[in-house]
Amino acid sequence: MIVQAKQQQQEYRDRAAEMLAAAGIVVTGREKAAMELADFGLDEFEATGLAIVVYENNDRYCAKELVMFPGMTCPEHRHPAINGRSGKMETFRCRSGEVYLYVDGPATPGRKTDPPAAPGGAYTIFHEVVLLTGDQYTIAPDTKHWFKAGPGGAIVSEFSSTSCDEADIFTDTRIQRVPD
Amino acid sequence: MIVQAKQQQQEYRDRAAEMLAAAGIVVTGREKAAMELADFGLDEFEATGLAIVVYENNDRYCAKELVMFPGMTCPEHRHPAINGRSGKMETFRCRSGEVYLYVDGPATPGRKTDPPAAPGGAYTIFHEVVLLTGDQYTIAPDTKHWFKAGPGGAIVSEFSSTSCDEADIFTDTRIQRVPD
Repeated sequence: MIVQAKQQQQEYRDRAAEMLAAAGIVVTGREKAAMELADFGLDEFEATGLAIVVYENNDRYCAKELVMFPGMTCPEHRHPAINGRSGKMETFRCRSGEVYLYVDGPATPGRKTDPPAAPGGAYTIFHEVVLLTGDQYTIAPDTKHWFKAGPGGAIVSEFSSTSCDEADIFTDTRIQRVPD
Repeated sequence: MIVQAKQQQQEYRDRAAEMLAAAGIVVTGREKAAMELADFGLDEFEATGLAIVVYENNDRYCAKELVMFPGMTCPEHRHPAINGRSGKMETFRCRSGEVYLYVDGPATPGRKTDPPAAPGGAYTIFHEVVLLTGDQYTIAPDTKHWFKAGPGGAIVSEFSSTSCDEADIFTDTRIQRVPD
């Protein structure tokens, strides 16, 4: 699900495009216009959302840029197997800013940040990986993860196997990742 | 095969790292040190070569940056099927500078550039695709292609299925893409 109001969409896309430009990442006008503004149906895009430029998504691999405003969170989810094919595997590479990534493992004491306000049980894993600009981390298929941009926002390149967002399973039961 | 002399390697890596930095692309010290300097065994790296930062290469997908000095060429080759698995499929996205890519199809009249000096038959396809910064093109498996950086050099992000360089088949029969 994406942000609904047209003017708001334009403002968010402009802002994300400015962040890409500031990081030296060139996208075409068509890519900017097609930028997905995922709000996960929660209608709180600046807190829980992602602005996504999909460069390529075919039956073998996928590449995207994820633009995150300051403190923006991509909520906890996993990528299950689909039709007997192993779930999506993905590598996050921080291109600008910093990102706090949470993956399976023991909770990190004194972690950098908290999830956005959400019903109990919406966030369950708190093992922290800090990605500064130039750092990357690969998520195994079907394992839970969530991530939040630092105070200056972040741009994350996602390299992965085929992307099939509709199949994602979110811990927050309010979320259904249905494309518009 | 890679450039042999240690001091020359260092100079090339420094130069490639400067180009990455100028394009706003941050790589770690370890990634810079591990940068592959592919000269395809021709010992003419600045004419026929690639400086390669491999971000990730697993059994599902691969992501690299290809740094090309001005006028540098990646020679004509194709990615055959391996063990019954379709050959590598790859997307080239020009991140800085410009690239002249040649793919299957009718020869382009008045094309932008020529291949480097090579024995007859080393370059056979001349259908041109010009990639400016922000443009991209996807190469089908097992189809011939070669590409050359413009006069200011270029940086190309390569998103692909698993990379298995040793399997590549070059039109120039002098070339065997054997890793050191």
